Amino acid sequence: MTHDNFIFTINSKDGKSRTGSFTTPHGTIKTPVFAPVGTQATVKTLTPTQLEETGASLVLSNTYHLYLRPGADIVKEMGGLHEFMQWNKPMLTDSGGFQVFSLSEMRKIDEDGVTFRSHIDGSTHRFTPEKSIEIQEKLGADIIMAFDECAPPYDQEYIEKAMIRTHNWAIRSKNAQKREDQALFGIVQGGIFSDMRKKSAEFIAGLDLPGNAIGGLSVGEKKTEMYKTIEIVNEILPESKPRYLMGVGTPEDIVYGVLNGIDIFDCVLATRLARHSAALTMKGKLNLVNAKYARDPSPIEQECECYTCKTFSRSYIRHLIMSKETLSGTLISIHNIQMLQTLMRQIQNAITIGKLNEFALNFLKQYEYKSGKFADSILFEGV
Amino acid sequence: MTHDNFIFTINSKDGKSRTGSFTTPHGTIKTPVFAPVGTQATVKTLTPTQLEETGASLVLSNTYHLYLRPGADIVKEMGGLHEFMQWNKPMLTDSGGFQVFSLSEMRKIDEDGVTFRSHIDGSTHRFTPEKSIEIQEKLGADIIMAFDECAPPYDQEYIEKAMIRTHNWAIRSKNAQKREDQALFGIVQGGIFSDMRKKSAEFIAGLDLPGNAIGGLSVGEKKTEMYKTIEIVNEILPESKPRYLMGVGTPEDIVYGVLNGIDIFDCVLATRLARHSAALTMKGKLNLVNAKYARDPSPIEQECECYTCKTFSRSYIRHLIMSKETLSGTLISIHNIQMLQTLMRQIQNAITIGKLNEFALNFLKQYEYKSGKFADSILFEGV
Repeated sequence: MTHDNFIFTINSKDGKSRTGSFTTPHGTIKTPVFAPVGTQATVKTLTPTQLEETGASLVLSNTYHLYLRPGADIVKEMGGLHEFMQWNKPMLTDSGGFQVFSLSEMRKIDEDGVTFRSHIDGSTHRFTPEKSIEIQEKLGADIIMAFDECAPPYDQEYIEKAMIRTHNWAIRSKNAQKREDQALFGIVQGGIFSDMRKKSAEFIAGLDLPGNAIGGLSVGEKKTEMYKTIEIVNEILPESKPRYLMGVGTPEDIVYGVLNGIDIFDCVLATRLARHSAALTMKGKLNLVNAKYARDPSPIEQECECYTCKTFSRSYIRHLIMSKETLSGTLISIHNIQMLQTLMRQIQNAITIGKLNEFALNFLKQYEYKSGKFADSILFEGV
Repeated sequence: MTHDNFIFTINSKDGKSRTGSFTTPHGTIKTPVFAPVGTQATVKTLTPTQLEETGASLVLSNTYHLYLRPGADIVKEMGGLHEFMQWNKPMLTDSGGFQVFSLSEMRKIDEDGVTFRSHIDGSTHRFTPEKSIEIQEKLGADIIMAFDECAPPYDQEYIEKAMIRTHNWAIRSKNAQKREDQALFGIVQGGIFSDMRKKSAEFIAGLDLPGNAIGGLSVGEKKTEMYKTIEIVNEILPESKPRYLMGVGTPEDIVYGVLNGIDIFDCVLATRLARHSAALTMKGKLNLVNAKYARDPSPIEQECECYTCKTFSRSYIRHLIMSKETLSGTLISIHNIQMLQTLMRQIQNAITIGKLNEFALNFLKQYEYKSGKFADSILFEGV
């Protein structure tokens, strides 16, 4: 399997962090990048036009969901995921593993794969590495993921078994791949245990895939444990390939991840918060339900260039929330996604001029990070 | 009160129907016009940008809803309704009467006004003609409505009382008006009773307001009764002023209304159907839940120029519906509103070339009107 379609070029470096370009059949991703999540082939409440206006490039969609509904064959028949949802920029699908383990109603894992019941109608299905790759090839995203098992972070004995299984499944995923226009990324597992994470990073790096991911984080462990794991793993994952931190995307986690050499992030946070009335700003979160916004004529964020901030007052958005109008979710999602795109651009600029540390410290202070002490001491310990 | 801001010019005539221009402080409305409904200062699930792209001009919003939430004072403080919701084209507010009688939890009507309980929190409020006008002046729409009582269509004795009250309230609404940049329309009531409708039309016409409306229709009466009432009333309402058929806006009712001299329509149908998965097309309604659309790569309507039809397949829209993604409501609303805007343009063109009858007959046959016989005989009886 050649990977000619996928070239990762590092453009500038600052400490462990770097800016880069990752070419895909649907365009070049400028890294570090934040990918909004379009779980069911749609970034909730947004048209692709609205999404594009936020500056988003890479978009993630979920194999588990699309396999169950509408079905991978229908997506393929409609021309693949890009055509189906009309997103003509790079896309990534996960392997389905995470949702099988977090959403499905019953699951039985064996060495070969996992049998599970649909959370929608209770019907029985089976995923194996080969099946996951087959589905992802039908969906047709630019980046696809090896089938993995995401185990709870603290059960050392079980995590070791799951990690070994994940490694075997990674080899099988690699062998199952037929399409050359998709970049398969391997996934490092191992919970919060340094030894296992090192072992897993070495194993996955050894597969020499076009990109590597860190899975099994932001699933209940402490922030310090997550940050430490990222450091340990990224010391091993090759610099020459993009590093993807799966399912992580709070502003502070993005900043920390980039400082430690992460290139790709995805998270449902931006859109989920939006549907729960919370806006992300460079100065922290706003809960727009708050009565103090009822007569506030200012936009969510004065400096923001998004459609929502250029057009609507906090007063109007609060009114939509109070009136249970779904447009509030749309407007805040537009803002939240664009806020993270802006953050990524600022991070890229800071790396380019060699001032990411300074930027990060200022950002985290502005963002009113719950523990200023945390930001000052632990966060920057290893940087 | 001068009405210099509001000039109604008839541009062409065909039988009782006409095309015209109605100037307002926020632009000229080309009639016949269909106004989408933005109940709570938002046309549900759409941004004003999306709404504008459908070709919509006049938008209606509801006084009752805005009075209760966020409150007329807040809307005024935020610069008025246009500024609040960022709709910079003509707007119309109703008087609140219809919702008081249909939505509020308790209501006590006397000659002076009506006391009611909010459907939101049960709090007690009172609307009088003076209060309705005061609220509508705070909201600041281009067209405002006299306060009226919409009684059930068949109770002759009660309807007479309600009609007389509506007439008294129309005089009081007229006297209460202070702003000259708003056109106050009177409302004809009288249920399905020809004598009362004539009396009411004469009374309302006699007030010499800049426009006249027909209320109390599409509230449970038969289609034939509605159509007959429109004919009777429009024989009396002056030709020189716009005629507004309140709350009516199915494609067939629009066609029939225009044939009988109606200039303005509004209806929640287009957006409500959309949120219930039904698309309006020139060839009838489509229920997009239908399994036959699961693999249908064609747009909702091949000839349609809307964003939805230019971008998405029925297959994708059905997937959004089945996956309970609110984007389906957005996409179908865009289509349904634009379909009605296209219909209005086709109607205008047909009037201009003197061929509305022909157009209407063809349209109603294409639209697969439930009773072809109805369209051929009764519908065109009086034309």
